[in-house]
Amino acid sequence: MGNVALLLRFLGTSYHGWQLQKEDDTVCRRVMDALARTVGHPVALCGCGRTDAGVHALRYVANFKAETAIPMDRLPLALNTRLPEDIAVLKAARVPERFNAIGSLERKEYTYRILNRPHRDPMYLNRAFFYPHRLDREAMKRAARAFVGTHDFKALQSSGGTVKTTVRTVHYCELLDGPDTIDMRVCANGFLYNMVRAMAGTLIYAGRGKIDPAEIGDMLNACDRRLLGPTAPPGGLYMSGLWYAEGVSAQWTNA
Amino acid sequence: MGNVALLLRFLGTSYHGWQLQKEDDTVCRRVMDALARTVGHPVALCGCGRTDAGVHALRYVANFKAETAIPMDRLPLALNTRLPEDIAVLKAARVPERFNAIGSLERKEYTYRILNRPHRDPMYLNRAFFYPHRLDREAMKRAARAFVGTHDFKALQSSGGTVKTTVRTVHYCELLDGPDTIDMRVCANGFLYNMVRAMAGTLIYAGRGKIDPAEIGDMLNACDRRLLGPTAPPGGLYMSGLWYAEGVSAQWTNA
Repeated sequence: MGNVALLLRFLGTSYHGWQLQKEDDTVCRRVMDALARTVGHPVALCGCGRTDAGVHALRYVANFKAETAIPMDRLPLALNTRLPEDIAVLKAARVPERFNAIGSLERKEYTYRILNRPHRDPMYLNRAFFYPHRLDREAMKRAARAFVGTHDFKALQSSGGTVKTTVRTVHYCELLDGPDTIDMRVCANGFLYNMVRAMAGTLIYAGRGKIDPAEIGDMLNACDRRLLGPTAPPGGLYMSGLWYAEGVSAQWTNA
Repeated sequence: MGNVALLLRFLGTSYHGWQLQKEDDTVCRRVMDALARTVGHPVALCGCGRTDAGVHALRYVANFKAETAIPMDRLPLALNTRLPEDIAVLKAARVPERFNAIGSLERKEYTYRILNRPHRDPMYLNRAFFYPHRLDREAMKRAARAFVGTHDFKALQSSGGTVKTTVRTVHYCELLDGPDTIDMRVCANGFLYNMVRAMAGTLIYAGRGKIDPAEIGDMLNACDRRLLGPTAPPGGLYMSGLWYAEGVSAQWTNA
């Protein structure tokens, strides 16, 4: 059996996240439907992580095992003609048998976009969190730096998370600010449930002076979700980068 | 009676254009509804031009006459709370009695966005015309230059146009190319029905070698719509700039 990896991009606005569900329309279901019609039989699909309803992906990797004679450079187009327009396959590649989109993942990057201007902008509808109040961007940058390193991030996990350890290593957390937008880009070896959106909410609280960036380290150590900022809404969140040890090159996932 | 101008921005995907219609949902109808609920009675609204279904506006000016005690700096927010999220009022200002959003307009700019890459990109869904084939951008630039100046543009008017003269002056027509997108920005003293979308279709034909840019001048002179390129779809089109003689400053409409 061949093992095939897909690089996807999707707008999450119309979907109940990635993960296959019995009733709801999800990105995984749509890609599996397109795959079944392309290879001629149902195929199990493994994604690189759950995403919540309304969350987008600039880059998302999934893999499946099936015999297919379709050349890899033609598979994206074959699938795209069978996918809705808000989901696209950008690349396909044969990968080693042991490659697994989630198990082989070494680190990933999310981008959270805040639209920070006095009046809302329809061009960013469902694509950024509109926050009209003035934000102290220097305070936000100091807050972002407080997340970097290996910490117990339990204080940034929503209830419902079911992981063995809540310790994660954040490789970088940086702010890119444009005239109207503020993008938080954060890369880690893994993220807890709603952790990125809680980080974004905490940066906003720091930017409003409701949280002192110098105290974030102690707040994390206290492991109390109530000390940090609120969970920012899903429409501003993008999965934006993936790094694999093997099978899929960094260039492929981060071009 | 006070005369008030509004600077608007909207995503046109969900609307049958700007113009008020009996049955269909239009941008003008939505703004008039919000205005009526804000000032307490129905108000006639004059827009700076018709836009087709699916066409967007980064900048759009409309004016209305009504007595209102609401300060101009608070009117945008008052209207935005009553407007759907894909329409926004960015600014409001009192203007001279004689100001009219369409009659006082001296020139306007449209931007047409082409997404030119091998696979479609969900982030540009309904916001650019996806054209996957290779385009010769230098040929497109030469074609764009052929539109500049005072010409009879009858050959770029769709049937249904009902204007006295088809002579217009194009002040500039330039191509801005990014890695994945090509933007045509064109400014004129006025545009014929579907003229910008026909210009975009002609640039694409030039980029594919189907039209020789050196022959566009003669094709315009022949006044035959069939000689030039097809009408490109509406989702790539944005009203992007407006210039007024008086009442509304260039800074206001082109900030």
